[in-house]
Amino acid sequence: MKHQIGRNVKPGKNMEIGSNVIIEEDVVLGNNISLKDNVVIRKGAIIGDNIIIGYIDIKPGQDATAEPIVTEIGENVRVRSGSVIYRGTRIGSNSMVGHNSVIRENTIIGHDTYIGSLTAIEGDTNIGNYVGVHTQCHITKFCNIGDYTFIAPLFVGANDQAMSHRRRTHGQDLIGFTTEKYVRIAVGVTVLPDVHFGEGCIVGAGSVVTRDVPPYKVVMGVPARVVRDASREEVVQ
Amino acid sequence: MKHQIGRNVKPGKNMEIGSNVIIEEDVVLGNNISLKDNVVIRKGAIIGDNIIIGYIDIKPGQDATAEPIVTEIGENVRVRSGSVIYRGTRIGSNSMVGHNSVIRENTIIGHDTYIGSLTAIEGDTNIGNYVGVHTQCHITKFCNIGDYTFIAPLFVGANDQAMSHRRRTHGQDLIGFTTEKYVRIAVGVTVLPDVHFGEGCIVGAGSVVTRDVPPYKVVMGVPARVVRDASREEVVQ
Amino acid sequence: MKHQIGRNVKPGKNMEIGSNVIIEEDVVLGNNISLKDNVVIRKGAIIGDNIIIGYIDIKPGQDATAEPIVTEIGENVRVRSGSVIYRGTRIGSNSMVGHNSVIRENTIIGHDTYIGSLTAIEGDTNIGNYVGVHTQCHITKFCNIGDYTFIAPLFVGANDQAMSHRRRTHGQDLIGFTTEKYVRIAVGVTVLPDVHFGEGCIVGAGSVVTRDVPPYKVVMGVPARVVRDASREEVVQ
Repeated sequence: MKHQIGRNVKPGKNMEIGSNVIIEEDVVLGNNISLKDNVVIRKGAIIGDNIIIGYIDIKPGQDATAEPIVTEIGENVRVRSGSVIYRGTRIGSNSMVGHNSVIRENTIIGHDTYIGSLTAIEGDTNIGNYVGVHTQCHITKFCNIGDYTFIAPLFVGANDQAMSHRRRTHGQDLIGFTTEKYVRIAVGVTVLPDVHFGEGCIVGAGSVVTRDVPPYKVVMGVPARVVRDASREEVVQ
Repeated sequence: MKHQIGRNVKPGKNMEIGSNVIIEEDVVLGNNISLKDNVVIRKGAIIGDNIIIGYIDIKPGQDATAEPIVTEIGENVRVRSGSVIYRGTRIGSNSMVGHNSVIRENTIIGHDTYIGSLTAIEGDTNIGNYVGVHTQCHITKFCNIGDYTFIAPLFVGANDQAMSHRRRTHGQDLIGFTTEKYVRIAVGVTVLPDVHFGEGCIVGAGSVVTRDVPPYKVVMGVPARVVRDASREEVVQ
Repeated sequence: MKHQIGRNVKPGKNMEIGSNVIIEEDVVLGNNISLKDNVVIRKGAIIGDNIIIGYIDIKPGQDATAEPIVTEIGENVRVRSGSVIYRGTRIGSNSMVGHNSVIRENTIIGHDTYIGSLTAIEGDTNIGNYVGVHTQCHITKFCNIGDYTFIAPLFVGANDQAMSHRRRTHGQDLIGFTTEKYVRIAVGVTVLPDVHFGEGCIVGAGSVVTRDVPPYKVVMGVPARVVRDASREEVVQ
């Protein structure tokens, strides 16, 4: 199968399209889009200009594996211009990705979630439903982000306690952060590896979070400490 | 009127051009540029490759409003490659926008101002003349940036005290920061909502600014506190 | 000489190519690539989509100088989509540049080094071999980064102590940071101008570094202070 395009798809100019690509009905495509092998775009999605979906990182002399790994853009998802979505990533319905962002391999994103512009999601991470990861954030590999979590701009998380760059242990023991439901993280926050954010906790602007945050507590500072209780506010679906 | 192109315009390849577009004389256009409806590019401007001007964010099933909202790029403005400028934004003469930046709707930028690369301006914000907003900054919605202000890289401002993501109050009571003239903000600064920076104040590197800064004072730290007076140095126009 | 293309080069679509361009054998080129004058791409390099190499920043009414300044991409280098590499920059063999990054003029990068996505290197800087400058970092002008240095995401360095924006002294006395070998800098670190990082030192996450760091010491905090000795671990070439 070369590819399969549904009714009422609005094509852009200079599209490049791989094998086994499925584009469902009512999809809107911008210009200069590259869809690699095994990409599925569900109905009603809007894909902007200069976007690559299903990207594979190949080293010189290497060939892409022949494995039919699917990259899926859900129903009514919007991906804004200039972003790159790697192979094996799946984005749930009604979610959104901003401009010039990079979402690496095997990132699983739920429905009704947004990823801001100029944000990097490093891959092998699960992001829930109704989540907001705002602009210019860095989500390291091996994170779990719970439903309704909000992460404000210029967030950064680490996953390698030893910073083992070019050491023999490089790439071992990597572990990112985890958020339970309803977590809110303010602008400019830095998080160390393996931090657990309890349900409904709040992290103040500019904090450096070095240890777990208990549920429904507010933490702030460098390093972040508990300063008071967080209120329980109902979320809107 | 389809569009109107002045003398001595240097066109790029694969340009896409909407209705009611005006390109004045001596404009230089790169490749893969998309100019949406009602864009005006004043004389002598230089627009780089892979740029979208007049971008409208449309949700699935939605149509762009027919309102003739102008997006204006002033005389001799340079916009570097990969940037997106939303509908209703206006950039004054001799200003500059870096690579891969995002400037959202209804941002009003004065003359002789620069916006660095990889910076996000979230829209509904006024930026004065002779301003520098450097690389990888995040300017939230509803800010006012005074003339001659300098903001160093990796700045982030917040505008939602309650972080009301997915709460019933979402989008209410948003207010960003304000700078008077001659403010200087060093690298890596985080600012809470509704902070007022007095004329000629200086903010030290890595500060987290939680309250108003008096004129001609130097603040630094987490949270930022006044440490000394700032000198009054004449600026160059 | 117009340009010179080696055997087995895989071309992309819509390539724009200047004078005196050399593309050696086995190079793989993506779509919408712009190679300016005097670009050299060594054998086996992989250049992604929407990339500009040899970029010159020209002001309105100005012409590029006719000087034959070479921009060189080394053997087996990978440059991922959406990045811009300015004229006079040279990247050593087996190095890598991520997506949507900006590397300005006269940046000299060694071999086996990587520059992450969404990172800005401001130019006139030397970066050694086996270095990692991760995602969303800001490397200011006039830095020296030693071999095996690791810089984690959302790093920012300053180079202008006076923040002389629009003052008469603007652009004078600029000096960035220097790292010796084996330096490791964690996520979210801010560095003042002219800081020297001694061999093998470690900087903790979220630190603001205001003074020199002695060799084989661990510093952290705001401002960063020595907290203990760093271990000496052998690196892997």
